[in-house]
Amino acid sequence: MATKEHSWKHRIRQIIYQTDTPAGYLFDVLLILSILINSLLIILESVEGIRMVHGQKMINLQYIFVAIFTIEYGLRVYTVENRRAYVMSFFGIIDFLAILPFYLAFVMPVARLFPVLRTLRLLRLFSVFKMVRYVDEAGVLLKALRASRPKIIIFLSTILLIIVIMGALMYTIEGPENGFVDIPESMYWAVVTVSTVGYGDISPQTELGKLLASVLMITGYGIIAVPTGIITSEMSRVSREAEKQENLPLARCPQCGQGKHMKEAMYCYACGVNFHKKNF
Amino acid sequence: MATKEHSWKHRIRQIIYQTDTPAGYLFDVLLILSILINSLLIILESVEGIRMVHGQKMINLQYIFVAIFTIEYGLRVYTVENRRAYVMSFFGIIDFLAILPFYLAFVMPVARLFPVLRTLRLLRLFSVFKMVRYVDEAGVLLKALRASRPKIIIFLSTILLIIVIMGALMYTIEGPENGFVDIPESMYWAVVTVSTVGYGDISPQTELGKLLASVLMITGYGIIAVPTGIITSEMSRVSREAEKQENLPLARCPQCGQGKHMKEAMYCYACGVNFHKKNF
Amino acid sequence: MATKEHSWKHRIRQIIYQTDTPAGYLFDVLLILSILINSLLIILESVEGIRMVHGQKMINLQYIFVAIFTIEYGLRVYTVENRRAYVMSFFGIIDFLAILPFYLAFVMPVARLFPVLRTLRLLRLFSVFKMVRYVDEAGVLLKALRASRPKIIIFLSTILLIIVIMGALMYTIEGPENGFVDIPESMYWAVVTVSTVGYGDISPQTELGKLLASVLMITGYGIIAVPTGIITSEMSRVSREAEKQENLPLARCPQCGQGKHMKEAMYCYACGVNFHKKNF
Amino acid sequence: MATKEHSWKHRIRQIIYQTDTPAGYLFDVLLILSILINSLLIILESVEGIRMVHGQKMINLQYIFVAIFTIEYGLRVYTVENRRAYVMSFFGIIDFLAILPFYLAFVMPVARLFPVLRTLRLLRLFSVFKMVRYVDEAGVLLKALRASRPKIIIFLSTILLIIVIMGALMYTIEGPENGFVDIPESMYWAVVTVSTVGYGDISPQTELGKLLASVLMITGYGIIAVPTGIITSEMSRVSREAEKQENLPLARCPQCGQGKHMKEAMYCYACGVNFHKKNF
Repeated sequence: MATKEHSWKHRIRQIIYQTDTPAGYLFDVLLILSILINSLLIILESVEGIRMVHGQKMINLQYIFVAIFTIEYGLRVYTVENRRAYVMSFFGIIDFLAILPFYLAFVMPVARLFPVLRTLRLLRLFSVFKMVRYVDEAGVLLKALRASRPKIIIFLSTILLIIVIMGALMYTIEGPENGFVDIPESMYWAVVTVSTVGYGDISPQTELGKLLASVLMITGYGIIAVPTGIITSEMSRVSREAEKQENLPLARCPQCGQGKHMKEAMYCYACGVNFHKKNF
Repeated sequence: MATKEHSWKHRIRQIIYQTDTPAGYLFDVLLILSILINSLLIILESVEGIRMVHGQKMINLQYIFVAIFTIEYGLRVYTVENRRAYVMSFFGIIDFLAILPFYLAFVMPVARLFPVLRTLRLLRLFSVFKMVRYVDEAGVLLKALRASRPKIIIFLSTILLIIVIMGALMYTIEGPENGFVDIPESMYWAVVTVSTVGYGDISPQTELGKLLASVLMITGYGIIAVPTGIITSEMSRVSREAEKQENLPLARCPQCGQGKHMKEAMYCYACGVNFHKKNF
Repeated sequence: MATKEHSWKHRIRQIIYQTDTPAGYLFDVLLILSILINSLLIILESVEGIRMVHGQKMINLQYIFVAIFTIEYGLRVYTVENRRAYVMSFFGIIDFLAILPFYLAFVMPVARLFPVLRTLRLLRLFSVFKMVRYVDEAGVLLKALRASRPKIIIFLSTILLIIVIMGALMYTIEGPENGFVDIPESMYWAVVTVSTVGYGDISPQTELGKLLASVLMITGYGIIAVPTGIITSEMSRVSREAEKQENLPLARCPQCGQGKHMKEAMYCYACGVNFHKKNF
Repeated sequence: MATKEHSWKHRIRQIIYQTDTPAGYLFDVLLILSILINSLLIILESVEGIRMVHGQKMINLQYIFVAIFTIEYGLRVYTVENRRAYVMSFFGIIDFLAILPFYLAFVMPVARLFPVLRTLRLLRLFSVFKMVRYVDEAGVLLKALRASRPKIIIFLSTILLIIVIMGALMYTIEGPENGFVDIPESMYWAVVTVSTVGYGDISPQTELGKLLASVLMITGYGIIAVPTGIITSEMSRVSREAEKQENLPLARCPQCGQGKHMKEAMYCYACGVNFHKKNF
């Protein structure tokens, strides 16, 4: 019986954690659909007009989704090889947090009222990104982003420094009477400005403030070139590398030592030796 | 007589569908001009001041353009080789939808009043893009865009996830009393913010909301580097490829017909012939 | 005497049109300074507080600058070789338009009152860009811009089409009651949105309008990648080309035919022949 | 005793100016922490609610930080080899300005009241960037930025010209009655617009103004491609160069010491030695 249980466990694990079997693929598609529909439900539930009319139906549907995600979470915990690792992993915590609010409402009835908790269920959306692992292209993007991390950290630190200095300067120049009530508020204005968002809820009123803001705007406008340059040159490098490797089956001709042969080369273009005849 | 009709049909087809004859070129230029003037007319018609004064003249002009486009549509359907394919094609549907509102107004007189329908006529503008096919440069742009489609889809999905999560978070933090009336409205705010548009019709009022919004702004500001990196590295690759092929001294090996030889190649890498010995 | 006049003319021409003599260089520097100070004067003259106090002094200073620019224009016309070409050239017209308003005020006294005319004098600022010709870096920028012109035209046409279609759609969805009073106004909103400027003077009020606006914002946010990609790949190509030519003094080794030799190479890296010993 | 003093001085110098000893590293980390906490204190001090409650505690903490920075400044001046160079250097002046406001308050009691002076202490944040020197990645960024300086200056000049011309044009078109009170104000609007910030505090009201603003917006939106192209192509060049040097199998010719050999090189291009024959 232990073997039977083991084999059941193994089969469920295959379906849940793998995508290369038809059942596993179907499971993934259905799960993503459930997550998307559930998320749509949560979004629509927040609209007063819809909640008024379809409120009860939506709550009932929520029960179904909570049941689905609870069963899924239970099966994941039950069948996974390294239980502790899954439960403490990023996706394990998200899977748990997404069903938590529902059960919390039984223990402490007030919990139902906290919209913060209900929104937690949206976290399931992150699970969709588990699928991204399988996508090759995402790998290239992540690789480029990871390789440029040190440069991006330096860039963000510079931006942060600009925001603090500019916030403090504008606070002293414009002051609370013009909406720059304290340095954190002025820093918020600096973020709104340097990122070129520009809500207009706070904007400089004095001449000096406008001059300084202009400098900040042009800076923010131009400085975007830096992260773009970082990512682009990194992505170009990655794509250039991939190109090179496609072109080079043999690093060097074994006879004359000439390198850089194309993939489809049969003869060395420098000495004319036939790569396929000789035993190298 | 059948042959005569056939020859007429053939000639009209040449004029309508091709641009390499003087008549065909003239037809295209006149058609584009008609579309542009007609579009200008529709735009100006919406301005109350102009409609008051020139309303009748404009309606009369519209009759002429509808007549032109109806005749053009009729001739296209009549002369095209694969009728069904054209009628159901993207441009076929647009050509039809652009003249539809006028005739609909005869059948159901109220239709004339719906500005939505009248605006349909602007769709003809898309036809101008039919000409783009002939432009070489557009091909490079489209090729680069198409090649980076999977990366762009991943990017857009990530943006969408950020918008949903941020919208839900801001809805719970700021709440309806600060303008974030429901999650869709908050998501609209997130789009306005992450794209750095920043209308300022909704903006965070609480400290925590401003902090979170700042994170979103910096994210939105920096994340633009990703699609730029994708498109740029793709375009660089395309232009580099074109460059490479220009550098090849022999487009094809004169003996075996194999192409893509490096500048310094002395032997064909496919058949091993010495380029410099033989007299080609 | 004709020769003397000719020699005078020649010397003034050298000073005005060339920068490689000390006098010519000094002339250029003084002229740029005059233009900059004059422009600053015009800018400050528009500030009411400053005009009240220093108005008369400023008008007097203006007389001096008009005199300088008139003399300069006269000398340019007098000494230039091809008079007609200069007078009708871009800079010739600007030089004329910049002094015109002053003299026009004598003929028709009302002219003095038109600020539009006074602002014309700011056009002299363009002359500063005449100097750019001498700057090497500007050449690279202009070259890259010119080479990508067809791609940029296609891009701008697409943006324009998006603006027209979006403007018409939003006009029919939102209507005059929400600020989208006619299609031109809606197109103005579309420009404000797609360029991510987002003043917030007009913004969608209906749900459908907000959804459509969101699509436009994400489009506008992402589509900036296209011109960036165009310019960047063009500039990379130009810089790559320059690099290549620096590295390649000999296209091919005259003995073994191997190409791609570095600038400082004395021996062929493939066959070892000394480039400087043999008589090729 | 002089030697003992000298040795003390030497040791302190090592701790303060170097990071490769454990003590020097610890000193740097503690200093950065002090600067960050001190900056946080200054930011929070500006918030009225916090100042009311914790005001006295914060002032006491400030005393401690001023003491720390004063001692540090004293030690730096005392131990540095070239005293004059340090005191007049960028970081030397910042270190001095950051402690100045505190001591100034003793001499002229009113000084305490000037928030401008208090904000000066935030300048210490710049010192964090001293650490950046040690970061390799920052070097690449700075190198790319420095190499593209002439191009960036031309770009900024063009932007400035656009802003002046556009500001003057909009001032004459819209006029003071629409918020464009003078040319500097209109130039401020042009900056807000061309940088795509778009506060909306000033926005065009007339048709012609809106049309011109649209042109400016599209210009601002597209022109961002230029600095991005500049930085990106520069960074690509730097990374390509680094790549090339990595590909060289021999960093230097073992016979003549010449570097930068191509991967496929068999002979040194400088001295002609055969890399594969000799036993290096």
